[in-house]
Amino acid sequence: TQMGTYFICTPIQEFDIRKIGYFKGISDVHRVTGNHKMVSSKWKLDRTIIDCGDGVLIGDNNLAMMAGPCSIESEEQINDTVESLLKNGVRIMRGGVYKPRTSPYSFRGLGMEGLKMFYQACNKNGIKIITEVMESAQIEEMMPYVDIFQVGARNAQNFNLLEALGEIDKPVLLKRGISGTIDELLYSAEYVFKSGNEKLILCERGIRTFESAYRNTLDLNAVPILKEKSHLPVVVDPSHGIGIRKHVIQMALASAAVGADGLLIETHKTPEKAATDGQQTLSFKEFDELMLKLKKLKEIF
Amino acid sequence: TQMGTYFICTPIQEFDIRKIGYFKGISDVHRVTGNHKMVSSKWKLDRTIIDCGDGVLIGDNNLAMMAGPCSIESEEQINDTVESLLKNGVRIMRGGVYKPRTSPYSFRGLGMEGLKMFYQACNKNGIKIITEVMESAQIEEMMPYVDIFQVGARNAQNFNLLEALGEIDKPVLLKRGISGTIDELLYSAEYVFKSGNEKLILCERGIRTFESAYRNTLDLNAVPILKEKSHLPVVVDPSHGIGIRKHVIQMALASAAVGADGLLIETHKTPEKAATDGQQTLSFKEFDELMLKLKKLKEIF
Amino acid sequence: TQMGTYFICTPIQEFDIRKIGYFKGISDVHRVTGNHKMVSSKWKLDRTIIDCGDGVLIGDNNLAMMAGPCSIESEEQINDTVESLLKNGVRIMRGGVYKPRTSPYSFRGLGMEGLKMFYQACNKNGIKIITEVMESAQIEEMMPYVDIFQVGARNAQNFNLLEALGEIDKPVLLKRGISGTIDELLYSAEYVFKSGNEKLILCERGIRTFESAYRNTLDLNAVPILKEKSHLPVVVDPSHGIGIRKHVIQMALASAAVGADGLLIETHKTPEKAATDGQQTLSFKEFDELMLKLKKLKEIF
Amino acid sequence: TQMGTYFICTPIQEFDIRKIGYFKGISDVHRVTGNHKMVSSKWKLDRTIIDCGDGVLIGDNNLAMMAGPCSIESEEQINDTVESLLKNGVRIMRGGVYKPRTSPYSFRGLGMEGLKMFYQACNKNGIKIITEVMESAQIEEMMPYVDIFQVGARNAQNFNLLEALGEIDKPVLLKRGISGTIDELLYSAEYVFKSGNEKLILCERGIRTFESAYRNTLDLNAVPILKEKSHLPVVVDPSHGIGIRKHVIQMALASAAVGADGLLIETHKTPEKAATDGQQTLSFKEFDELMLKLKKLKEIF
Repeated sequence: TQMGTYFICTPIQEFDIRKIGYFKGISDVHRVTGNHKMVSSKWKLDRTIIDCGDGVLIGDNNLAMMAGPCSIESEEQINDTVESLLKNGVRIMRGGVYKPRTSPYSFRGLGMEGLKMFYQACNKNGIKIITEVMESAQIEEMMPYVDIFQVGARNAQNFNLLEALGEIDKPVLLKRGISGTIDELLYSAEYVFKSGNEKLILCERGIRTFESAYRNTLDLNAVPILKEKSHLPVVVDPSHGIGIRKHVIQMALASAAVGADGLLIETHKTPEKAATDGQQTLSFKEFDELMLKLKKLKEIF
Repeated sequence: TQMGTYFICTPIQEFDIRKIGYFKGISDVHRVTGNHKMVSSKWKLDRTIIDCGDGVLIGDNNLAMMAGPCSIESEEQINDTVESLLKNGVRIMRGGVYKPRTSPYSFRGLGMEGLKMFYQACNKNGIKIITEVMESAQIEEMMPYVDIFQVGARNAQNFNLLEALGEIDKPVLLKRGISGTIDELLYSAEYVFKSGNEKLILCERGIRTFESAYRNTLDLNAVPILKEKSHLPVVVDPSHGIGIRKHVIQMALASAAVGADGLLIETHKTPEKAATDGQQTLSFKEFDELMLKLKKLKEIF
Repeated sequence: TQMGTYFICTPIQEFDIRKIGYFKGISDVHRVTGNHKMVSSKWKLDRTIIDCGDGVLIGDNNLAMMAGPCSIESEEQINDTVESLLKNGVRIMRGGVYKPRTSPYSFRGLGMEGLKMFYQACNKNGIKIITEVMESAQIEEMMPYVDIFQVGARNAQNFNLLEALGEIDKPVLLKRGISGTIDELLYSAEYVFKSGNEKLILCERGIRTFESAYRNTLDLNAVPILKEKSHLPVVVDPSHGIGIRKHVIQMALASAAVGADGLLIETHKTPEKAATDGQQTLSFKEFDELMLKLKKLKEIF
Repeated sequence: TQMGTYFICTPIQEFDIRKIGYFKGISDVHRVTGNHKMVSSKWKLDRTIIDCGDGVLIGDNNLAMMAGPCSIESEEQINDTVESLLKNGVRIMRGGVYKPRTSPYSFRGLGMEGLKMFYQACNKNGIKIITEVMESAQIEEMMPYVDIFQVGARNAQNFNLLEALGEIDKPVLLKRGISGTIDELLYSAEYVFKSGNEKLILCERGIRTFESAYRNTLDLNAVPILKEKSHLPVVVDPSHGIGIRKHVIQMALASAAVGADGLLIETHKTPEKAATDGQQTLSFKEFDELMLKLKKLKEIF
């Protein structure tokens, strides 16, 4: 079993692992079978903890909260949200500035303008930013203002984007594809990891099924299975996972009970006026209620 | 809003509800719109509590536990299980004697012989029995030995069976169909209710999706939605819902956290030797662990 | 390879096949591996042809047409349909008298009254009847009036019904389950076959997916795959398979092109007035058009 | 109804269409309701025909064939394929040089090197090229060597790529997403169209379902529905749609029978040696057989 440092290589061809076992300083050599190599819990037994800076961690035994609006709308909106987060001790704010929308006629975000505004308000309050990047060409420009890059469900197999994110040194949160398998999510993570970036977070956000009574089918089975197969932290997005505001709190509690390392929650001062996703966004008051219940839950696990 | 007793009728034709409003003793008359009438929370605001006799309730604020083997195998097996249940204060034992099996070459249960053995061992220990009935012709014979009739996922739309169960006076637990919608589950419940039996329990047990990393996709979204739409108790079967033994406890905790009124859990003294479903069955030791964790969870909700 | 007559047995335990190979009159002995035994094309190379009597065959190289209304409604309706069928040389009429309906408040068929009426009108015109049976208790009463028993999608895994149909000597058409796999359909066929009835027809009728632009997803992939795996005839129901009247003809042509042995088509004199399924039912004029196009198609294959 | 030329605009705000109706030269003004505007058959009644140059058309009443290997491998392979296409009168060759692969360890194509080789061999033989583009940054470099840009299933909602392709003047073929709805495919087409490129082809290639007996579920229902909803040509990829070599011909015939405007077929001199997708690739001999059968089919429709 793994105890100290390691290095890993992925030879294309057949290779006799005894060759390197004889080198000095090597205590042990293993062959990792299975489809996924670097993200697999077979070669790395310790769970990965993501350090977002300033003591903000994901994957330690605290439930990392990432909350905020679906879309960044205005300075006032950001400040209101920051206040709500600070009050609850939440250190990461979510908010989209590039929005992938099914229809070209929908609101598509404030872009770089919005991101800079978002960054300024959060940075001075010690709050980290997670926001979605839609293609590799955007990375460089966004880089100074982003703490965690989010890859959305529709880009879960945008391999060019994944490899480009593999070359940077900031955490990346990968959402499972709209009908993506667990296996595919791990392969997508492998793309990033293999390209050099080990700061990865996996995110369950609901899958597409035949059921139409809610938006997506939140697949909480995926949490223990991902945590068994991979050493990476696993977070859940119950807001997208059910898509109905009044049920988000319960699904968030279930996500925590099943062992998620963190939660992505959509919150807004006035959900009914949100530019996007208002139907699944908690008010600040509801968010306070959620935080209180999560606190109780954490005490027993 | 509903405060006292009620009666309900489902006229086929258009009807002027004022006609009955004038009768003496009628305090109020409402028209229930929507597809489901009698199982809908629109006409009955109080949540239904199922009384299985001897103080065994489902739907009050305790989490009703129904545990036991997938299949009844032997007297010894039943007695071992009873002992495990008694130790944990569990009052309902599950166990199949008629097993719907995809292949005709699989083990199909001990039938009436097994049921009588099952009943004897449980009855003298004050434990109630839940077991599956596969067609209406079996009901009469099974009747004296069964406390809760279970309708399996494959029979979720066996309307003849549902109507026959509507004519008896024992609780019925309806499992959601293999790819059944929430709407269809409520319609199936309506079949039973409309035929006269109001002692109904709804059960989420996982749905069929494209994902193959586990057996079924446990749909915990269904719990708050069913509880919103219907006044009937909602229980969860995490054993079938994930189908992998080592993850059942976590999924059971998530089910409790999301507000389930009860749990169906497969347990066996030696899961690896179980006639059926061993791969998803908890050992008695694992079951003890689950009960301990559930106890802690109940304290905070 | 198989050339003459055969007999088959399904021993539960391990068995040395050489034991029976030495018996006189045995030319060869084979072990059939795989999940399905008797319905598998591994042990029977000739394709099965179902003889419905009076020269009405399913599975020979003609496309067997089964057409008629979703529900039997009246004598006049039956007579109108018979006339349309006779005109087009169609020898099998479909029509439901027991209707499985999602809601208990929907029209559920005329029952035995309707069946007798149906039989009389068809019998005197040399037309065979296919109609749905919903539970084993109905078989005996229906027996004299039915030529082909249909098992509906919701009963695809009603194993008691399947075994009961295995004990009669009339053809049985099995519809694939609402989200039934190909494998499960073959297992269900195995239930009937193993119980003694070899007159089986498999039917693809669309599966449940996430797509909501039509009723079901007609899975024409299933046709070549079922014909490869099994020796039984495979028919298609494009009416349920798309559920939209104006597209049924095209889907029927595709079904014929892909190699179906027959088609189930919903037709009605006035589809817009049909008691059930009007939205997917062809008018007689549209049915004539379909028959004309199928005739051309048959000339080239 | 539409008879002559048209222009269309998509005002964001409410607008009184009578304002422009009074302008000179305007014969009629319509408001297009529904989600999709420009790709909808509501505003353009004539079906769109894509001109790929040199008389190669898609969407006229001939079935446009696009055949070739999954991946471009070598000059010899290209020349062999060209020969097979010329023999059958096929004018468009498919072949991937950038391959989106689930695993980063799989073969990912020859890139620009391969594309240039591909172009040279086809161009001198009057054969048009269709190949996949994976991100907007690749378009410019690929431009001189590509006749039709293909957007793969995994990029079906890569909106940045779609908009970038909207700004060029070459045909674009959009594959339906892995579990993409018909509605989403039309929205994706709308992204391209709205950005200025009207040369669009829609492609059904199978969707993800629970069925595992084949690769994808070819959804032929989508063909008549897409042709009803949109004026764009609709082609089918039966190779990916079933994923099993021996069944591709039958699925191709069904696709033609249902009214597809063209087919994408994977062919290779020695499928068993193909770098990718060999299991679903036709040999040249099988491709000849398909072309012969399609010819017969075309005579009757």
